[in-house]
Amino acid sequence: MPLKAAGECRRLPVVSLLTDFGQTEPFVGLVKARILAACPDARIIDLTHELPAYAVEAAAFWIDRSFGFFPAGTVHVCVVDPGVGTARRILLVEHSGQLFLAPDNGLLTNLTDRAGTTVRAVDPGYFEAAGIVSPSATFHARDLFAPLAGRLAARTTRPQEVGSLIDDWLRLEVPRPVVTPDSIRGRILFSDSFGNLFSNIESSSLAPREDWTVAAGGRVLPWVRTYGDAPPGTLVALENSFGVVELACVGGSATGVLGIGAGAEIELSRRTGTVDAGY
Amino acid sequence: MPLKAAGECRRLPVVSLLTDFGQTEPFVGLVKARILAACPDARIIDLTHELPAYAVEAAAFWIDRSFGFFPAGTVHVCVVDPGVGTARRILLVEHSGQLFLAPDNGLLTNLTDRAGTTVRAVDPGYFEAAGIVSPSATFHARDLFAPLAGRLAARTTRPQEVGSLIDDWLRLEVPRPVVTPDSIRGRILFSDSFGNLFSNIESSSLAPREDWTVAAGGRVLPWVRTYGDAPPGTLVALENSFGVVELACVGGSATGVLGIGAGAEIELSRRTGTVDAGY
Amino acid sequence: MPLKAAGECRRLPVVSLLTDFGQTEPFVGLVKARILAACPDARIIDLTHELPAYAVEAAAFWIDRSFGFFPAGTVHVCVVDPGVGTARRILLVEHSGQLFLAPDNGLLTNLTDRAGTTVRAVDPGYFEAAGIVSPSATFHARDLFAPLAGRLAARTTRPQEVGSLIDDWLRLEVPRPVVTPDSIRGRILFSDSFGNLFSNIESSSLAPREDWTVAAGGRVLPWVRTYGDAPPGTLVALENSFGVVELACVGGSATGVLGIGAGAEIELSRRTGTVDAGY
Repeated sequence: MPLKAAGECRRLPVVSLLTDFGQTEPFVGLVKARILAACPDARIIDLTHELPAYAVEAAAFWIDRSFGFFPAGTVHVCVVDPGVGTARRILLVEHSGQLFLAPDNGLLTNLTDRAGTTVRAVDPGYFEAAGIVSPSATFHARDLFAPLAGRLAARTTRPQEVGSLIDDWLRLEVPRPVVTPDSIRGRILFSDSFGNLFSNIESSSLAPREDWTVAAGGRVLPWVRTYGDAPPGTLVALENSFGVVELACVGGSATGVLGIGAGAEIELSRRTGTVDAGY
Repeated sequence: MPLKAAGECRRLPVVSLLTDFGQTEPFVGLVKARILAACPDARIIDLTHELPAYAVEAAAFWIDRSFGFFPAGTVHVCVVDPGVGTARRILLVEHSGQLFLAPDNGLLTNLTDRAGTTVRAVDPGYFEAAGIVSPSATFHARDLFAPLAGRLAARTTRPQEVGSLIDDWLRLEVPRPVVTPDSIRGRILFSDSFGNLFSNIESSSLAPREDWTVAAGGRVLPWVRTYGDAPPGTLVALENSFGVVELACVGGSATGVLGIGAGAEIELSRRTGTVDAGY
Repeated sequence: MPLKAAGECRRLPVVSLLTDFGQTEPFVGLVKARILAACPDARIIDLTHELPAYAVEAAAFWIDRSFGFFPAGTVHVCVVDPGVGTARRILLVEHSGQLFLAPDNGLLTNLTDRAGTTVRAVDPGYFEAAGIVSPSATFHARDLFAPLAGRLAARTTRPQEVGSLIDDWLRLEVPRPVVTPDSIRGRILFSDSFGNLFSNIESSSLAPREDWTVAAGGRVLPWVRTYGDAPPGTLVALENSFGVVELACVGGSATGVLGIGAGAEIELSRRTGTVDAGY
């Protein structure tokens, strides 16, 4: 894996962080301090620290839909880790020339379902050999993940030095839509900060969307290309910028107006003859 | 516009971000990833991502009162954009050797009311020519603003390559105080995190403040220079660090104690003879 | 104080920020802009900006428990400052080759209780001599702390140029546990984002913990090494990653389950004979 191509000499190492730590205490800042200690010129990007506590499924969605926007060589540190300090392993995954560190609790399920992924379990002996010693039992992000991520970003440690390839990592049972020739029955994954509802139905499965009507919360929602294509207050469905079907309320909150949230059903039915007026 | 003066060779490109995206989802992180992809050594500063959704007026206030603290050459990315994906234009504004990108929805009104501002509309053809292709319909901050901002910060794109000068950009109707020789009647713009109330009355219009008494929420508030000049619990008025008249409660929340918020009236009356005791 | 050792030439200056500013307004971003203006290659790390307003005691705990993870030469800017703009002094503290700026309000009490600390009061004349002029009365973090921190980080200003050594800085009355041979009676300092309760009892005072039983909120809590060592829903006590006794609820919130928060009592009693089953 040639992480550093000729002509990329100006590119600084990038490290992304995805946690459920919140920003009230200095947890994230201490993770960053230890990354910089190992890789002084790392560029550290916060993906989010506001995931609901222990929200492994949401973390799995977001890292999978985010990594494609990062350059080759990026090291992603993903820590939603209710099992911190137990015998659960730490995984090092490689995909598309990028590296991912996460506890072995299913957080990287969506990613490792992709082709071309290699998965290693970090050997506990690696840390001692690397001088990463005396970790606390409850803050591995600071005491193990960060110094390892810094070394990987700085290329002072290579993936193959960290641990062996495995094939028995833990996978989440990700709920998938139930598909028949005439219907796709999915679920709402979560509501974002605007009150937009993300579903687990892939936009690419529609081909094209005009063939389908969308229903959720007892309402039928017209397709739009973007929010501004319908008047304020309109409930709409769209193919969103992360590749899934989204329900939104123009200028407002679909969560509030529809009164539904994570886990709610969304059903697409194949049209028969008539064409949607749309907006 | 000589953005890069001799002797500034160590100065790295600075990009600021001002959005209403919140920090719960990785929206902001993905904007940063794409800025770094185009400008690997950019220093990215978050102004805020916690503006109320679609709060174009507050965004207009803050960018106007913030840019003066940034070095020449800074690129400010301001995205409060209910019209994302529609035909609304993207503006590139220059002022004081700094660049500002925003949707054409009035967000830069306060700034473009200043002298010495030039305004361009980004030519949609620019993006294609620059290889910035296949944007989503709902996340232009990531798909258009960020790669453009990165290129401007890296100076691989110059403003005049991006689009032509225009004079028909959209301006907000900014509420201005009603001024008579003996009174200034203004409005509360918003409450900050401490519960301090920012008004739309410019400190510079008082000259000097001792000439005026301040009333709001049915109370008369004494002037102070700073919070600690009055005992805890005192409601006070002051000329704040952003150049407007502010109402505060020492060690507490003026919003809570006065029971008023954005839109409330604040009235200054010219004194006649007597002098305020003050603190 | 040789802040810059040979071989550290690649290490960039690190500045940490700890405030109660919140992230809703661009206050923190403007502090960063002025730090970068004075030190263009500074790496700025947010410890937290979400401390409760005016929470000097929590700030004192966190900076004291955080600095050890930062490299020598780091400049920490700590601003919880209800006395901003009054005659209160600004302190510059040195410890372990790191620098700390804070208002003289007790914020650095825990730190200055350590051996090997030197404390200076910043001479108001310094700012004028350094060209740091016309500060506002209410935002010294932006107008005084940031430009000073930037100069210290860039080493264009040395500590001894800033002000003289003092010994009369303000110290908080930090509540300490009441210790008898058979009991340690402490207090909850605060609840973190996960609902974990931090106490003021040092782990190092137990030696070993097996000698003690823990009671709080009318419950006796078993010791564990880490959260995952007990079943979900179990209330547990542990020596946490910041060196104090912590109460937690596995997979949940101890604050919620125990119904206690900051200020509540926690009592450790010496065991007599029997050994705790533990987990």
